[in-house]
Amino acid sequence: MKESEKMQAIVAASQKELQASTSMSQEVTRRSFLRQTVALAGGAGTLGMASTAVLADPLPIPASNQIMGAPLVAAYGMPSKYEANVIRRRSDVLVNKQTLSDWSMTPLQSTPGIVTPNGLFYERHHNGVPDINPDTHKLVVHGMVSKPLVLTMSDLMRYPTVTKFYFMECSGNGLTDWLKPASKTVQQTHGLLSCAQWTGVPLSWVLDEAGIDPKATWIVAEGADASGHLRSLPLDRIIDEAMLAYAMNGEMLRSENGFPLRLMIPGWEGNVSIKWLRRIKAGTEPWHVRGETARYTDPMPDGKWRKFSFEMEAKSVITNPSGSMKIKPGYNEITGFAWSGKGKIAAVDVSVDGGKNWQQARLEEPVIDKCLTRFNFNWNWQGGPAVIASRAVDSTGYVQPTVDDIKKVRAITGFVQHHNGIFPWNVSANGEVTNGIG
Amino acid sequence: MKESEKMQAIVAASQKELQASTSMSQEVTRRSFLRQTVALAGGAGTLGMASTAVLADPLPIPASNQIMGAPLVAAYGMPSKYEANVIRRRSDVLVNKQTLSDWSMTPLQSTPGIVTPNGLFYERHHNGVPDINPDTHKLVVHGMVSKPLVLTMSDLMRYPTVTKFYFMECSGNGLTDWLKPASKTVQQTHGLLSCAQWTGVPLSWVLDEAGIDPKATWIVAEGADASGHLRSLPLDRIIDEAMLAYAMNGEMLRSENGFPLRLMIPGWEGNVSIKWLRRIKAGTEPWHVRGETARYTDPMPDGKWRKFSFEMEAKSVITNPSGSMKIKPGYNEITGFAWSGKGKIAAVDVSVDGGKNWQQARLEEPVIDKCLTRFNFNWNWQGGPAVIASRAVDSTGYVQPTVDDIKKVRAITGFVQHHNGIFPWNVSANGEVTNGIG
Repeated sequence: MKESEKMQAIVAASQKELQASTSMSQEVTRRSFLRQTVALAGGAGTLGMASTAVLADPLPIPASNQIMGAPLVAAYGMPSKYEANVIRRRSDVLVNKQTLSDWSMTPLQSTPGIVTPNGLFYERHHNGVPDINPDTHKLVVHGMVSKPLVLTMSDLMRYPTVTKFYFMECSGNGLTDWLKPASKTVQQTHGLLSCAQWTGVPLSWVLDEAGIDPKATWIVAEGADASGHLRSLPLDRIIDEAMLAYAMNGEMLRSENGFPLRLMIPGWEGNVSIKWLRRIKAGTEPWHVRGETARYTDPMPDGKWRKFSFEMEAKSVITNPSGSMKIKPGYNEITGFAWSGKGKIAAVDVSVDGGKNWQQARLEEPVIDKCLTRFNFNWNWQGGPAVIASRAVDSTGYVQPTVDDIKKVRAITGFVQHHNGIFPWNVSANGEVTNGIG
Repeated sequence: MKESEKMQAIVAASQKELQASTSMSQEVTRRSFLRQTVALAGGAGTLGMASTAVLADPLPIPASNQIMGAPLVAAYGMPSKYEANVIRRRSDVLVNKQTLSDWSMTPLQSTPGIVTPNGLFYERHHNGVPDINPDTHKLVVHGMVSKPLVLTMSDLMRYPTVTKFYFMECSGNGLTDWLKPASKTVQQTHGLLSCAQWTGVPLSWVLDEAGIDPKATWIVAEGADASGHLRSLPLDRIIDEAMLAYAMNGEMLRSENGFPLRLMIPGWEGNVSIKWLRRIKAGTEPWHVRGETARYTDPMPDGKWRKFSFEMEAKSVITNPSGSMKIKPGYNEITGFAWSGKGKIAAVDVSVDGGKNWQQARLEEPVIDKCLTRFNFNWNWQGGPAVIASRAVDSTGYVQPTVDDIKKVRAITGFVQHHNGIFPWNVSANGEVTNGIG
């Protein structure tokens, strides 16, 4: 048997061994891995002899060591061709005939850590992506101000900067999967969620510079896109953290995320962080525009509709394992995201029995206010059906509710916004993971 | 005069006003901006009348509001066409005839925050970028271990993950600009520096699983590239933090940065974080390979050469304003990066008079161990020549030295590695910023 064939056999055998392993306890120690080893046959001594390399080398030298590589990439790099399936996707459930008022979703199952690559940051547009030249773009600040402003991008970029990590979530995230499974993957159930490090200028600086009237209580922000997207915002609730953002994750905003300028309201539903921002007007009451009355409202049990929900309440989701994956018996890491529009994540609990019992997961540093937090949980799956779910607790003490809890205070009819309910995944006896809602 | 012309005149006038402003004190308050306002002529009242929009609008409606935008991007997004100049670049000073043992540099002047976009992450290859299929790639762990291992990527990705923010810097960063100016921009003087959130498996887990011999004190790590790039590493110094990394900034590694697997040694010179990692062998002493003896060594005053420097000592650089920029009188934010391979950044001082006087800059959260830290400093430039520089202090108490300090303990001859000296930028009377070294 050739050396390479020998190695293939060894790897195959060792993989079988790994599949059979059941050694992982909740308390992870390095030693706890010793019983689920992927081992080479024979000892180190015999291995050296097989080598053709300068150093004793148990495997044949790979082809990539023997042919010159591709030239320097330089310019602006792209992901490996082997990652071509890791892309944003439109909804599988609500398929639009057009792509102008539409959205694409982040592949959360393929984004470790808390930073969403800009190329995978979710999109939501109401009439397409405008082409705006930053050299001619202007921001107007007017209304109840003593000194109305016209700011160019170079004016804005002379201000002192502030940079913060914040999540961004669409209020409609999850609206297809309230009562029964409609979507298959976590990209489809929760993918209107992303996180970036945002850089910009505090809104408060610019409003002060414009001499905002102390009697002004609301502003309206308007985008330079073909939908004329605009929202009314209560000044006292946003003034401390609202940002005029021009950069995300170490580069200027992407066109589909508001280039060259957007409003960033930390922790609030994404649609109020106006993209392609061109205008802010100060007044004394909301403008009640169509996007605040006919859309982006929440039905209540008494038949009325709630306006201006704004804040995204604490929520979490398991991203791995998740829908359409297949797991093997033995050790499986359960990992996912938790976030809250009202503060930091204080704790995340994980259940592997459909919510009967909960155990605390590990939170990965840094844990940042109004930012995605990564949680990890060690699970030793013995085989047999299981239902896995996560439950977030935030720094205000708020506990992520079940859908039944939400039903008590809101009417769940049709495509309802602000679904922050606990979301379960079913694991079948053969390890297939499927949407477990309802 | 047409409305649009009127607005152009207003913006031009207001920009002149901004240029003339000299109001920024070191203590930034929002109010401190009130005297350098970009103002519209007239009051808010008159402005409403100029509008053709639904809401009173002082400027003509932009074209982008009146034509439908481009369709949803979906797939994997790219930067705006207006950002086409923000790319990695090869050295302007050391131009290779080939691009196989070469490097490209990060445009630090265009990367706000601390996250380097993967598309702009610096590159250094010794024989090009290999094409490695992750489905067939294997990591071998052998030598002084009781249970040699062959791990596939899917084996590795079943381990519990760890995710951390760390900087990466080439030991040669700055080697063209020790004694006199050779490079023009901060991309060319300091661009072999980037920062990412890395995800992978602790090296210690895998070595324990392989049953590492307690007598083993060094490992050698080898890449699957055509240079067979390899390095000897002292186990006791790396074991706590070394990572087998497969992801960066929320996606799998880029090909030019080691896809599908690399070693990550936090805080150490980049060349030891072996890319395209295929093999780790344990032993009792370094292997003294060519890259450790003929290259990557430091000349000492006594004529000897130091091997195994490894750790990157505390360093900082001002990225804005920096070489080839032109600033205007009045408020200018001085901002840049500070980092240390030995711990956290404790403080950054900024001088605007060539090092005679130093003032403390603001550090932006999060401040993370062995990670880039962003510093900001408010400067009111009155015009006239100036020399601006930054000085980092790390959590061990180490203070970033001057080049003269470094000369006392090392020989600065030719292309010397590990340049962590204080780096000045000259500002001319008309605001032109140039390399101020030497």
